[in-house]
Formats: sequence, C-alpha cells, structure tokens
Amino acid sequence: MAKLKWGMIGGGEGSQIGPAHRLGSSLDGLFEFTAGALDHRAAKGVEYGQRLGLGDRAYGSWQDMILGESIREDRIDLVTVATPNSTHFEITKAFLKAGFHVLCEKPMTMTVDEGEEIVRITKSTGKICAVNYGYSGYSLVRHMKAMIARGDIGEVRLVNAEFAHGHHADATDADNPRGRWRYDPAQAGVSAQFADCGIHAMHMASFVTGQEVTKLSADIVSCINTRILEDDAMVNFRMDNGTIGRLWTSSIAIGRQHGLGIQVFGETGGLRWSQEHPNQLYYMPLGGRLQIIERGEENLSPEADRTTRVTIGHAEGMPLAFANIYKDLAEAISAQIEGRDCDPAANMFPRAEDGLRSMAAVVAVADSGKQNGAWLDARPPMYQ
Amino acid sequence: MAKLKWGMIGGGEGSQIGPAHRLGSSLDGLFEFTAGALDHRAAKGVEYGQRLGLGDRAYGSWQDMILGESIREDRIDLVTVATPNSTHFEITKAFLKAGFHVLCEKPMTMTVDEGEEIVRITKSTGKICAVNYGYSGYSLVRHMKAMIARGDIGEVRLVNAEFAHGHHADATDADNPRGRWRYDPAQAGVSAQFADCGIHAMHMASFVTGQEVTKLSADIVSCINTRILEDDAMVNFRMDNGTIGRLWTSSIAIGRQHGLGIQVFGETGGLRWSQEHPNQLYYMPLGGRLQIIERGEENLSPEADRTTRVTIGHAEGMPLAFANIYKDLAEAISAQIEGRDCDPAANMFPRAEDGLRSMAAVVAVADSGKQNGAWLDARPPMYQ
Amino acid sequence: MAKLKWGMIGGGEGSQIGPAHRLGSSLDGLFEFTAGALDHRAAKGVEYGQRLGLGDRAYGSWQDMILGESIREDRIDLVTVATPNSTHFEITKAFLKAGFHVLCEKPMTMTVDEGEEIVRITKSTGKICAVNYGYSGYSLVRHMKAMIARGDIGEVRLVNAEFAHGHHADATDADNPRGRWRYDPAQAGVSAQFADCGIHAMHMASFVTGQEVTKLSADIVSCINTRILEDDAMVNFRMDNGTIGRLWTSSIAIGRQHGLGIQVFGETGGLRWSQEHPNQLYYMPLGGRLQIIERGEENLSPEADRTTRVTIGHAEGMPLAFANIYKDLAEAISAQIEGRDCDPAANMFPRAEDGLRSMAAVVAVADSGKQNGAWLDARPPMYQ
Amino acid sequence: MAKLKWGMIGGGEGSQIGPAHRLGSSLDGLFEFTAGALDHRAAKGVEYGQRLGLGDRAYGSWQDMILGESIREDRIDLVTVATPNSTHFEITKAFLKAGFHVLCEKPMTMTVDEGEEIVRITKSTGKICAVNYGYSGYSLVRHMKAMIARGDIGEVRLVNAEFAHGHHADATDADNPRGRWRYDPAQAGVSAQFADCGIHAMHMASFVTGQEVTKLSADIVSCINTRILEDDAMVNFRMDNGTIGRLWTSSIAIGRQHGLGIQVFGETGGLRWSQEHPNQLYYMPLGGRLQIIERGEENLSPEADRTTRVTIGHAEGMPLAFANIYKDLAEAISAQIEGRDCDPAANMFPRAEDGLRSMAAVVAVADSGKQNGAWLDARPPMYQ
Repeated sequence: MAKLKWGMIGGGEGSQIGPAHRLGSSLDGLFEFTAGALDHRAAKGVEYGQRLGLGDRAYGSWQDMILGESIREDRIDLVTVATPNSTHFEITKAFLKAGFHVLCEKPMTMTVDEGEEIVRITKSTGKICAVNYGYSGYSLVRHMKAMIARGDIGEVRLVNAEFAHGHHADATDADNPRGRWRYDPAQAGVSAQFADCGIHAMHMASFVTGQEVTKLSADIVSCINTRILEDDAMVNFRMDNGTIGRLWTSSIAIGRQHGLGIQVFGETGGLRWSQEHPNQLYYMPLGGRLQIIERGEENLSPEADRTTRVTIGHAEGMPLAFANIYKDLAEAISAQIEGRDCDPAANMFPRAEDGLRSMAAVVAVADSGKQNGAWLDARPPMYQ
Repeated sequence: MAKLKWGMIGGGEGSQIGPAHRLGSSLDGLFEFTAGALDHRAAKGVEYGQRLGLGDRAYGSWQDMILGESIREDRIDLVTVATPNSTHFEITKAFLKAGFHVLCEKPMTMTVDEGEEIVRITKSTGKICAVNYGYSGYSLVRHMKAMIARGDIGEVRLVNAEFAHGHHADATDADNPRGRWRYDPAQAGVSAQFADCGIHAMHMASFVTGQEVTKLSADIVSCINTRILEDDAMVNFRMDNGTIGRLWTSSIAIGRQHGLGIQVFGETGGLRWSQEHPNQLYYMPLGGRLQIIERGEENLSPEADRTTRVTIGHAEGMPLAFANIYKDLAEAISAQIEGRDCDPAANMFPRAEDGLRSMAAVVAVADSGKQNGAWLDARPPMYQ
Repeated sequence: MAKLKWGMIGGGEGSQIGPAHRLGSSLDGLFEFTAGALDHRAAKGVEYGQRLGLGDRAYGSWQDMILGESIREDRIDLVTVATPNSTHFEITKAFLKAGFHVLCEKPMTMTVDEGEEIVRITKSTGKICAVNYGYSGYSLVRHMKAMIARGDIGEVRLVNAEFAHGHHADATDADNPRGRWRYDPAQAGVSAQFADCGIHAMHMASFVTGQEVTKLSADIVSCINTRILEDDAMVNFRMDNGTIGRLWTSSIAIGRQHGLGIQVFGETGGLRWSQEHPNQLYYMPLGGRLQIIERGEENLSPEADRTTRVTIGHAEGMPLAFANIYKDLAEAISAQIEGRDCDPAANMFPRAEDGLRSMAAVVAVADSGKQNGAWLDARPPMYQ
Repeated sequence: MAKLKWGMIGGGEGSQIGPAHRLGSSLDGLFEFTAGALDHRAAKGVEYGQRLGLGDRAYGSWQDMILGESIREDRIDLVTVATPNSTHFEITKAFLKAGFHVLCEKPMTMTVDEGEEIVRITKSTGKICAVNYGYSGYSLVRHMKAMIARGDIGEVRLVNAEFAHGHHADATDADNPRGRWRYDPAQAGVSAQFADCGIHAMHMASFVTGQEVTKLSADIVSCINTRILEDDAMVNFRMDNGTIGRLWTSSIAIGRQHGLGIQVFGETGGLRWSQEHPNQLYYMPLGGRLQIIERGEENLSPEADRTTRVTIGHAEGMPLAFANIYKDLAEAISAQIEGRDCDPAANMFPRAEDGLRSMAAVVAVADSGKQNGAWLDARPPMYQ
C-alpha cells in the first residue's frame, strides 16, 4: 500500500513535540511526512521544512498550507496540529472545513463552545478529528479496555485514576516565567494541573470503561500559594453507567516521576496499570490470585496484538504508544478512502467528542472547586 | 526491672485478637500476663484463663476483675480491652475510674460524647488510655514522623492516605451474616468502611504530620447495593496547619490485599510508605533522587532505633509493630511509677484524644456523605 | 497443655541472639524460659539469668547446668546452644548425651567428623538435635516445599539460590577486628562467606526440593585482597535426584541489603521467593501466567497454614519465621512425650543431618575453590 | 544534513527483524532506506523491496547488490546484514571488502577464525563493522558505563550478569522443528543458550566495565534431555583488570519473561539494571542509600543524554535502544565522511572485535563445559 501523506502545523526546530510526532507517524511506515508549516515565523518554518525534505510543501503559515494543499491532487491525508494551545481551535476548524483529517494536540479547544463547534464540523464534513490522548495507545491499555468490554471483571463498580507527579514542586522556581504561565489564568485558562494532566487520567477512565463522565465534584488547591490556578486536585465523579470515579492529580507530589495510573474494580475482578511500567497489567479475578499479564503474551485480545511490536519481555515505551494512535488513524483514513469498515481494533483513537468532553470536565472542575465541591454536570450542553 | 503486670478483657479461646495482644505484650519481656476476664461466658473465661496460667486471677467478668484487682497490692498495671466494639466505652471508663491504665481496641467509643467523656476521665484521673492504632507502631512510620518533625521535607503541603482492599467485594457473599453486620447501621453505627479502615489511614496522616484534621468533605458509596453503609469512601480534608488531605478507603478494590499506605509531600521533599512492604521508606529530597530508607539502617532517628528488633534486610512485620505499642506503654507506665519523664521516643502511642478525634471524623464523614460532600467540622465539640 | 521448659546456653546481656531466641521460643506460649547459663563469665551469667526470672536455675556454666538439670524431675525439655561457633560441638554433644533435646545455632560443628559424631549420638539417644536454619521457618517457604512435594511444578530441573549482600564491602573497614575474624581461617575455619551465608541458601535449596546436594564445584574469591578467606563464591552443584544447582553468595554486593532468595524451575512450573519480601511467592505454571501467592491466603497447604499468624496483607517477618522453628520443636517434643506421631507439617525443622551436610559442603566448597573448581563429593563420608 | 543511505540484506516480508531494523534506522531521520536484497528468493525480494519504495535498488541477491551499489556515485553508506546466522560471515566480509560499512546481526560469524578475518578486514579497509548487541543501546546502560568509567563506584570488583528466561521450558514442545534447531549442533553450532542469550549478558559485562573477558569456566546442562546442546549454563569468568564475573543463562526458567540484567560491584559503590524495567538504574554508594536513577533526569552523563528521547517518567523501550545503535553509526559514518573525530558519546557501539570475542567465548564455554568446568582462555588467538 502506498503511504498516506502527512503534514504538520507547529513542531518547529528545537521543539520536543515535532520529533515525537514525526517519529510516531513514521514508525510503521504508514505515513510519509509531506507538508508542514512548522514555525509561526514564516521564513524559519520554510527553511526548516525544506531541510526536513518537504521541498515546496514547506509553508510559511498554516493558512498558506491550506491553500497550497487544497489545490493539489496529491494533497495530504492527515494534518497534525501541534501549535500553542490557544490556536488549536482555529487551525483545527480551518483544516476540517477545508476537507482534511486532523490530529489535534490536547486541549482541542479553550472553551466548551468551541469544542461543540468542532464536533459539529466533524459531523457535517465526515472528516476525522482525532485528539492526542496518547497514553490510550499503550498496548495493555487497549487490552484492559478489551477485557472490560468482554466482561472479564463484570459490571464496573469503581475507577481510581491518578496523574500525580512532583515536577512543579519547587516554590523558589514557581515565579520562573518558563513555568509560571501554567498557573496563570490569563494564559492557561480556568485550570492548570487538571487541564494539563488530570484530563489524561479522566480520558483513560472513560477509555477503558467505555463510559462517559456525567457529573463531578472537585477539591482544588494551590499548594504553592503564589499560584492562582490549582497545582493539586481531587475529583470525585460518576459515569453514565453508574460507575464511581476517584481522580487525583498533582504537580507537587515530590518523588513521583510521572504518576499516571489506573485501577478498575468490577463485580468479578480488578485491574491495575501504571504508565511508568506499561508492559505489565495486574489482574485479579474475584476469589482468585493476582496475576501479571505481560505485553506480547500469547492469546491476548486483537486490540492488544494490533498494538504490540516487540516480543514479550522486551520493554516497549511511550513513543510506540504514540505511534499506535497514528496506526489507528492510518487504518481509519484508509478505510474511508477504500469505502470499507474500519478495523474495530483500530477504531478506538480519541476523537473530537473526547476533546469536547474533556473541556467540559475542565470547566466543571474549576467551577466545582470554586463552589466548595458542589456536584456539577460534567457534560457539554450538547450531550446533556 | 520487674515485669509490669498485664490483664485482658476479651480475647477468649479461638479469637484472633487474644493471641495477638498476648504476643505483643510479651514480646519484649516487659509485661507479664497476670489477669483476665477473657470470655463473656463466665465459666468458659475462667477455665481458659486458668489454662493460660492466670490462676485465681482468671475472672468471670470484667466487673469481677475490677473488684478483684482493685484490692490487691500487686494489681495489674495495664488492662487491654478487646471486647465487641459496643462495650469498649463502658469497660474502658470503668477501669480508668478504678485507677487502671487501659489499652482499648479501636473504636474507643461508639459516639463522640462518649469519647469526650473518656478524655475527661483520663485528664481527671491521670491514667493512660491508649487506643490501638497499631500500624503507627511500625519502625519506619515512626521514622517518617521523626523526619517530618525535624524538617526533612519542610512544611507539609499535602498528605495522601489510602486503606483500600478487596476483601468484601463478593456480592454473592454480602448477605452472609458473618460479614453483613459490618454494613448494617444497627450493629456497626453510622459508618462501615471508613470507621473500620479509613480511620487507620486518617490517624496515620495525623500521626506522621503531627497535625489534626479540622474539616472534611466525603463522598461515600455502597458499590454493593444491598448494603446500607458505605463500602467505599473518598474523603478530602484539611489539617490545623493548613495541610491538604486526600483519603481513599475501600473494601471492594479487588486485587489489593491490604492497601494501607501514605504519601506526604512537603516544600522540600516527599515520603512514601506502604504497610504491605513496611521495611522500606521512599524519600525524595526536592531536586534530588528517590532513595530507599531501610528499616534498621545506621543513623536513623531514636524513634526508629527504639522500635527495630532485627538487623537490616530481615523482614519485620505487623506483630512487632503491635509490640511497639506495648513497649511504649511499658515505658510510659514505668515513667509514671518512677516519677520521671517518659522517653520522648516512646511517648507517641495513640491515646484517648486520638480515639475521640477518630469518632468525630467518622460522624463527620457520614454526615458529609449524606449532604453531598458538604464541608463539615471534623473536630469533636470540645476541640472546636 | 502445660508449657514445655526451655533453657539456653549463651545469649548473655547485650547479645542479639539471646533476645531473638527468647522471643522465638515464647511467641506461641509453648515454651517457658526456665534455665540458662547465659554468659561464660559465671557471676555475670547467674546475675543476668536471675534478673530474667530464672532463680536458682540460672547457672554459672553449661557444665553446671547439665548437672543441675539432670537431677531434677522438672528438667528442661529443650536447650538452645547459642555460644561462639567453636564451642557448639562440645556443648551440643554433652547435652544430647545427658538426654536433652537441643537446638543448636549454626554451624553445628567446625568439622565433618564432629558433625558425624553428633548425628550418631542423636541416632543412639533418640534425642532431637535441631539446627537453626531459621529462614526455613517462613510460611511461604514451607508452602513452596509443599507445592514442590505435591508436584505443582513437576520434576524439579534447576534451583538457583542466592545469599548476596553488601555489608562487608568496605575495604577500609576490613582490618577492623570486629569484622576481620570472619575472614581469618584461624578463627572462622576453612570458609567465610559460604560458611556464614551460603549454607543458608544451600540448605534452602535442599529444604524446598527435598533433595540433598551430592557434588559441587566452587569458584571462590577474596574481592578485598587483605582477606584470606573468600568474600564471594559461586557454587555449581548437583542433587540426588538429578537437579542442577546454582548458588551465589557474596558480602561485597553493595546495594543488596540481605539478598537471600531462591528460584526453583520444574518441568511444569517455576517458583520464586525472596527473604526481603517474604509474604509473596511468585508462581508460574508452564504456559500460564505469573501469579502472586500471598501469605495467609485461603486454601494454602497445611504447612503454610500452620506457620501463619496474622491475616493476609499484613506483613510477617523474620522473628515469626524463627518462632516457627520453636513451634515445630514443641510439637516434636510433645509427640515424643506423648508417644504419638509428630504432625507431618511440623516435622520439617532442620536437624543434625542438615548441620552435618552443611559442614561437608563447606569443606567441599573450600577444597574445590583451591582446586580450580574441581567437582568434589559434597556429602559427608557416612552418606557417601 | 542530508540523510545517510541505508541498505539491508535479509528482513524479507513477514520477518520480525526487518521491521525492527527499518524502525531503528529511521527513528531519528538520520538514515534513508535506499537499497536492499530482502529475500533469498530473488523475485520475492525484488518485489517486496519495490513495494517498500526501493525502486531499482531492490536487488535479487546480496551479490547483485554489491555490484549494483558499488558502481553508483550515491551508493549506500551502511548495510545491515540480517540473514540466517550461517551466512553472516560471507556477506559481511564481501560488503566490507567492497568498501561498505556494515551492521551485522549477531553472531557475526560461526567460528573464531572467521571472526579474526573480519577484524583484520576492518583494520585494513578502515570500514566499520558493527555487531548488533542492541541492549547496549539503552540510555541507562550507557549511563552505567559512564558512571563506571568516571569512577563513581571505584575499581570494579565483580560483575553478575544474567539472561535467563523460560520460553523454551516445554519438553513436549522441544521436538517441534520450529524450536529444535536451536539445540541441534548441526544447525546451531557448538552452543545454544549461551550463544543465543548468554553472549548478550557477557557483552554487557564488558560494555559497562570497559574490560574484556580473559578466561572462563562453564557448567552447561541440558535440562530437557532430548536436547544435545545446553539450555542452561553457568559461567564464571575473569576480566583483564582482575574483575570477577558470574553469568547465568537459561531458557527453562519458567516465570522469567526476559531476564537480562546486570549488577556491578566496585570498591565504593554498586549498580543494578534490568532490561524488563530499563528506565531505572539502582545505585548505592558505599555507606549510603540505594537510590533510583531515572532515565531522562537532569545532569546525567552525555552518554545518557544523547540516547534519551522522551521526558523523564515516560517509559522508553527496546526499539529506541535499537535506534541508538543506528544513531551512533550515523555519527561514526558522518565523522568519517567529514574527516573529523566521532563524538565520544557515540563511539561506543559494538564492533567486529566484540563479535570476535563473543565467538571465542562461545567456543570456550562449550569446551569448558565438556571438560568439567576447566578454566580456559576466553580470548581469540589474536588477542592472547
């Protein structure tokens, strides 16, 4: 099969996110890096794109890129938006409307209204808008989802999700401009730690259970008191199937290096997974023993098999999880092109709907926090 | 030094708690098992006590024991109350008033009023009333407390405590009378899982930080819906020095065997400890590396040294933690007898005040849970 | 049942081993500490014994104690020998011949000849001579043995045992008299690290498999070159049922706190256990998943049930393992007294035969080491 | 910089090794897949190569590829040899002689003579011949090497290396042709498990210490007795700086998923690393505490920084370790092209000399095993 053509907005020279996306998209040889507007400084972006081999498809701005690509026969199949957060909405919207599939970095938008607009556009255009909740690409996270879906732990009762690390714990460094913007509402919006990390944990809770968050109550605090936005939050929530949720997120938890993990407890079993050691999934059937499911072992689910690349016992890490999102997108796009159904094991990448729900949850967390933990609807208006 | 004389109420033949206390009290050779009213069936209790070597100090009832011991010159120095929960208050009160030191199993009382009464009696009589939060006896928990007290992690910002296991997760077993009483308010009071396990975690949060819980907000649920009382609770709280608290307790978390653990995050460091692997304490100084403090290593605190018995690398477990409470009590009682100050490293066993605060927290959790997580004062009236 | 009467040789004031044995013997209330010759300085030993409540059964020497106890009706049922290594043989022999059961600290003797003599005496007198390989008392070690015996992993193919720590790694401290004797043949005999730690690992290999070591080849080295005896040894061995053995022991392995562990691989399964986390046993059936067996879980073997005291999830440690040896001995002695069969689940404490085999292995390791790893018979002459 | 041109021999459709090398070579965008003879069936290889975009540089045989590439101005810069083991020598030799740099899969050759010939050719031609000991590419393995080189643990005393798994433990499956060849000398040569896995562990011992193995003694066994070659081996060895070595390798260790790990003990510290959790390195300085070095943390060595791609706390796995070998090669080749010194942090990929030493060690292990563990020279003749 010919490779799909892929483009990128943002990810200029020196950025971390650029190489990560180029790696993720190329890992399986399914996408070819074809076009890009890599820097908001037009000349720099063009020059860097040419160095990366984009030729005349190195554009000076995303607007130019829409124009340039739209008129080509061999236009790109997918564009990744990896620009500053406040520009995601505008760019994503423009590319979708111009008929391109989009993978948008999180957060997809800065407001719920914008999120709803993106969802409506995807509905009307039929274009894919994926959102990069990359941790959902891990093979054993996929397997966890598959196990729950097929009933291995019975009805889910409770989910406990965490994303708590200690990388912003230094008060003497909190006024450093490099990090201060994260906790400044003028730049970061209504939430800091929950919007940055908490929503990964919340998305994962939804992803593995196949349920959506309906309402929530939040306790948010700024442990470093020069911060306006929260650096720690505890969120209790309910999901549409009655599942109870507990979610803790923190950036002041010194000693925790990353801290994304999830535990799911059902009527007949429990599951536990942690991003820092992603190649093991702990499973206990009711009345049985704790057992360790290894990535790559025999007879796992199709969802797991599809997303594992190296043999059992060898560590696989985040870059491959990330690549799995691209692998899903390649399948979904190819299925559209070929007019066939998408492989169900691929059809599980995060979408505009997830981006929208996250945004609604962020707003609900911020509001509940201000109202002493009042229980608020966590859904966007269009889903209420 | 002559051994102190120790007696016990409850802990009859076949009980688990009886041998545990006899082991804990005898481990260091500081107490001699001298008297007891071991069973509510008088004849059985006397017979069993005699078999255990108590002779004529095997009593048929706790009332007889008070009478019998009060008139002896060589009366017991300490009595442990390990009877059913609803009788703790009456027995503890009677022994304190008769001039005996008491170690009471938790919960100390069934109401806050009763708790306040016990505290007042200890004040007026000068007698010790300890409460058996036995996990606070672990050597590295003591060391954690010492590190925090001496400023190793700076001002404490946040505590995350858990006591979540999966041993009551079987819905088909939930109607079994053996376990049902735990979730029945007529027998268990206003709270099940929080009162049973959660208060251990909350006590530990207070113990290691040296701070008391002032207010809290709780989300309580019955995941098994035939239960009236909660089998899972999430409690957010605040402590008197401004510390933020998160506490999760559950009995439906399949795959977790015990699940008591605590994480403390301060301005300049973080600490983490888990009861299932109690011989390691994880410590990270701000800007440094995670390091593993081993029970028994050189140059730990006096509080740790005092409570370690075997050399580094050898596992120490719960029975020795339990014995440390008795070791503390032996020192406190001896200091009273000898009219000297108690060793400060021993003067940290849980007391009536802790039992009272726990009861107030239990009531606050139950009330907050009914009021959608309203923030309530967690302190007993006498401390408000 | 009346308590058995227990005495001790050695374990004077300030020793570590004395309290450990008193704790182990008393933990289950099966033995009463009745007599002792606790110090080679007669006056000190008597005075300390009296302080510990031995009255006129506090003796000034072990010879006096044999005399004194032999003529009593209520003579002690068991004596523990915890004196310096070079005296074990003489004292153990004397007590056995005088008709006492003995628990001897390891090493039982300093030569193979002496070991054979002890074994012969136990045969002729019918008296028990136990040897304190205390790690074999852990509940999950017992369960491991039971699983292997009942065929859970099929025929055993290979055992990998380790006892490697880093507590003698400091070259600048190696000339310190406190530690130097360990590596000095004049005081320690033919072997240092293997004799001190390695034989625990080798005994455990025999204990869990139920097989004896028949021949071995050793590579021994002194990593700190001022030492005459070895501080690191690798031993390959064969067992009487064809099982292959690998055994590494070291005292210079910086970063390892204790390091005793064992892995057993059979035709249909594998098992793994480590002393530092003794409450978990890792088991994988061929073609299945790694599962974690927890101490105290339901439906374990009688051997495990008999040696567990606290409920699942609570840590149990070395002092309780140690106590299990005493618990076994109480049962074995009581069975003799009562003229009945010993509970098979108790009849597994280490014996004179094990002490003898260890001594033969020590000599074989030392000799093989000197002969460039020549394969030598590891059995004592009487078993060849 | 323009990408280097890369070609491949072997790795045809359906192979595992093909995609792994294409991924590793492309991950950093330093190599472009340009030419290949991917299958020994000429038509299939050409067709598959064309599908992968090689155009007229998809060759029918490696001989054709040498001819075709040699005459081009834009000939490939590096060729990877990933054909069946017995063909590595011939192909590698031919490409080196034709002036190409080579990355050869292990084992580089089937005999020591062949290995020496390759080394001589690299010397005379100046061409690079790398050998794919891919585990040496892990970032924290590089850091371990750097720490040892700069003296963080003082003089190295002892290395303990393992590569023991349980994936060939099923006796009922041992006659399956799919696996049987591994233990058949006609196909596998003089050694099975040591040649397959053990040499990875031995290479790692050399890699991190910077020392070569000089002599060894081996105990080799076939636990499954229908096998002619060994499925388990214990190797004791000595290195040229006096370091002691212990190396265990097995394929019957049920319950171990991969099992490559290394421990290094020096005068002033110890280090421990395991491939299954490659993002943590355990380090204890003499007299200090065990600490956990995290991949990606600040202030690591240049060797570590160069080989880390994602931020701290995110798992990195084997595919990225593999890519690091290619990254090194890109730097080494570019340095040659540009006539400058290679970055020392890159100049550490395994080379023909390592492949030769491994082959000599394999022969020595097989011979020592047959001679009851005789100590034999482990060096190839040209280094004796």
